[in-house]
Amino acid sequence: MSDIQITSVPGFLAGALNCGIKASGKPDLAMLVSENTATAAGVFTTNKIVGAPVIVGRKNIKRGRLIGCVTNSGCANVCTGKRGIADALRMCELTSECLAQRGILGDEKKILPLSTGIIGHYLPMENISEGIPRLVGEIGASAEHAEQFAHGILTTDTRPKRAAVRFHLGKTPVMMAGACKGSGMVAPNMATMLAYIVTDAAISRAVLHRAVKTVADQTFNCVSIDQHTSTSDTFVCMANGRAGNAPPLPDSTAYRDFTKALMAVADDMAQQIAADGEGATKMVTIEVIGARFASRARKAAMAIANSPLVKTAIHGGDPNWGRFISAAGYSGSGLNPDRARCWVGGIEVFRHGRPTDVPLEQIRQVMKEKRLTIRVDLGVSSLASAKVYTCDLSREYITINADYHT
Amino acid sequence: MSDIQITSVPGFLAGALNCGIKASGKPDLAMLVSENTATAAGVFTTNKIVGAPVIVGRKNIKRGRLIGCVTNSGCANVCTGKRGIADALRMCELTSECLAQRGILGDEKKILPLSTGIIGHYLPMENISEGIPRLVGEIGASAEHAEQFAHGILTTDTRPKRAAVRFHLGKTPVMMAGACKGSGMVAPNMATMLAYIVTDAAISRAVLHRAVKTVADQTFNCVSIDQHTSTSDTFVCMANGRAGNAPPLPDSTAYRDFTKALMAVADDMAQQIAADGEGATKMVTIEVIGARFASRARKAAMAIANSPLVKTAIHGGDPNWGRFISAAGYSGSGLNPDRARCWVGGIEVFRHGRPTDVPLEQIRQVMKEKRLTIRVDLGVSSLASAKVYTCDLSREYITINADYHT
Repeated sequence: MSDIQITSVPGFLAGALNCGIKASGKPDLAMLVSENTATAAGVFTTNKIVGAPVIVGRKNIKRGRLIGCVTNSGCANVCTGKRGIADALRMCELTSECLAQRGILGDEKKILPLSTGIIGHYLPMENISEGIPRLVGEIGASAEHAEQFAHGILTTDTRPKRAAVRFHLGKTPVMMAGACKGSGMVAPNMATMLAYIVTDAAISRAVLHRAVKTVADQTFNCVSIDQHTSTSDTFVCMANGRAGNAPPLPDSTAYRDFTKALMAVADDMAQQIAADGEGATKMVTIEVIGARFASRARKAAMAIANSPLVKTAIHGGDPNWGRFISAAGYSGSGLNPDRARCWVGGIEVFRHGRPTDVPLEQIRQVMKEKRLTIRVDLGVSSLASAKVYTCDLSREYITINADYHT
Repeated sequence: MSDIQITSVPGFLAGALNCGIKASGKPDLAMLVSENTATAAGVFTTNKIVGAPVIVGRKNIKRGRLIGCVTNSGCANVCTGKRGIADALRMCELTSECLAQRGILGDEKKILPLSTGIIGHYLPMENISEGIPRLVGEIGASAEHAEQFAHGILTTDTRPKRAAVRFHLGKTPVMMAGACKGSGMVAPNMATMLAYIVTDAAISRAVLHRAVKTVADQTFNCVSIDQHTSTSDTFVCMANGRAGNAPPLPDSTAYRDFTKALMAVADDMAQQIAADGEGATKMVTIEVIGARFASRARKAAMAIANSPLVKTAIHGGDPNWGRFISAAGYSGSGLNPDRARCWVGGIEVFRHGRPTDVPLEQIRQVMKEKRLTIRVDLGVSSLASAKVYTCDLSREYITINADYHT
C-alpha cells in the first residue's frame, strides 16, 4: 500500500498516549483533529444496546461538521446509563476546550467521542480528564504521530491497520488515508470496529454521507469475525476541503471517483480487520453467487462465515467441504440442491448434487494458503451475489476470550 | 433417571456392531426394531441440503407405519446424488429381507434409514451389506442390547444419551424410552441429532405426529451447540400399542398425558445433548423473557447461545455480562435498553440501562457451576418467552473440529 499516513493529509493532526486505562502502559487515549472544521459523515452500530459515545456521536455528527475525534480504548462506556452519557459529553467538552487553547476552534458538538473495550464499566474519568489536555499538547502531523494514533485505538488487535490512496477529483490531486481497529466482537452492521478516514477533498455533507453509507455496506459491513455485532462500532469520514477541488455533485464522475477511492481505502482496511481477527491464522473470503436477491446471497455468505464448523475446518486445513455447502443449506437463503456448486480456493468440489472427482489431497493443498476463497453457487438464479470477509477459528480465540475480563 | 431402557419396552429389539466404517472398531451399525408394525411419526432437518436417508425416510414415514430403524454412524450419505439414494434404499431393503427371515414382517418402506458422520462420501456398501444380516441375527431385548444401540449411533459424542418414563393412559400403565446422539453440527430445526423414542402405548398416526411435532419444537429444537443445522437430523417415535390402552383422542386428558411423557423424555435427552456438546465443560440454559412474540424471544435466546463471545466467557467463568446483553441487542428481536435486565445464575447484573452493584466476585462464583442459567428480559412486553440449551466453547471444540476429516 501507500506510504501516506493520516497525518500526511494536509490539515490533520493525530496522536495518542497512555492515561492509565490499559495497565500495560500501551496508548489508550487517541486523538484525530482537523485544523479547520471538516465536513463529516459517519455510520454506527445497529445493536439496540449502544455505548454512550454512540448516543452522543450520532447527535453530534448530524450537523455534518467535526473538528476532531477523541477515542479511548480499554473501556467501552456501554451499559452505563446517564452517568455514561455525562462522561462521553465531558470527553467532548474537555477536548474542544483544550483545542481552542491551541487555536483550533469548534464547540463540543463538533467532537466525536469513541470508546472501545469492556462493557458495563464506567470510564475512569480522572485518568481521561488528566490525559486529554496532555494529549492536545502533544498531537502533531508527523509519521510518528500517525503511528501513535493507529496504536492508541487498538484493543485485542495484534497490529495497526491503515490504508491510503492518492487520486484526482477533476484535475485536482487529492489524498485520502485511514486507520481502524477491530479484532473481536466483529460482525456487520457494523463490525466491532472503529474506522477513521480523512481526506483533503472538498465535498458537501449530503454527498459525503451518501458515499460513506454506500462504502460501509460493501466493505466494513462485509466483515464477520465472530458474528457478535458490537455496541460501539463507528466509521467516520472527515473531509477538510484543503485540496480546493470543486465539490462533487451526486452521480457525477467526480462523485464516482471519490466513492471509488473511499471504497479502496475502506475495503483494504476491512480485509486487514478480517486477517487480524482474534486468534486468526487465515483470512477467508466467502463468495456466494446464484441467489435471487443480494440480501439472500449475503445471508448465505454470513451463515458460512459464522459457522464454527466451517471456521475450524479452515483452521485445520481440513477439506471437509460438506460443512461449507450445508451452512448455505440452513441459511434460509434459498438453495437448489440439484444445481448448487461449491469451490474451495478455485477448485470445484461439489456440483449438481454430488462430489466432483478432485482428489482430497489437492483441496488440502489449497487450504494451506494464508488467504482462501470459498465460493458457493446457490443454483437458484443468476441475478445476485455477495461477499463476506472472515477468518478461521483457533484455540487462540478461546484463550483470548475466555479470560478477557480479568 | 429411570432404569428403563429402549429394550425394556415390550416388543422392541435393539443392537449394534462394527461393520468396518469406524476404524476404531467401535459399533457403527445399529438397529431398533418393533416385533409388530408400530405407528410412527418423525420430524427431520430443515436444511436445504439433506442426506439421502432423510429423502428416503421422509417418504417412508409418511404412511405412519414402521417395523424398524437402521442406522450407520461414521458416514452421513449426504451430497451423494442418485447413488446415495440407491444406497439408502438398499439399506432398507436388506434390513426388511433379513427381518422377514426372523419372522418380523414388513416391506422395505416400513424401515427408516439414518446415517450420521462425514458429508460428501459414499457409503461403504460392502461393509453395510455384510453387517446388516449379521446384526439382524444379533438384535435382542436385553439391557446390553440397548446399551450397544445407544453406543452404535454415536459420532463425536463422549457418552450415550438415554431417558425413559413410566406413566398411565387412562388406567393402563405405559412405558416410554429413548436414545439419541448429537454433539457437533447441532442447531435447531433440528439439531444435528438422531433421536429415537419407543413406547408400548397405542396411539393413532395423526395424534402421534402432532405430539412429536409439538415436543420437537420445545425440546430438541431448543438445542444449539454450534448453530450449524445438520443435513441428517431425525427424531422418530414408534408406538407399538402393546400396552392395550384406548388410543388417546386429540386434546383429551390421555393426549396431554402422552405428550407430557414424550416431553419429559425428549427434554431430558435434549439437555444431555447440550451438556455433551463437542468440547463442552458446562451446560447452559438461556432464558429470554419480556418479548412481544415467542419467535422474537427465541431469536434473542439463539443469538446469545450462538455468540462465541458469550460461549467463551462462560467457558472462562468470566463475569463479562456485557456480552450476554449485547447479543440480545443485535439479535433483531426488539429490546428496550432502558427497561432490559440481565441475570447470571440468578444474580441480577444489569437493570434498566446500567450495572447493578453486585460484586464481580459474586458473579464469578456462580459461573463456576457446571450448570448455568443466563436470563435476559428484553423489556418490551410481558407476553412471550423462550429457552435454549447450549454449552460453552472450549479449545477442545477446535481440536475436535479442525481435523475431524482425517
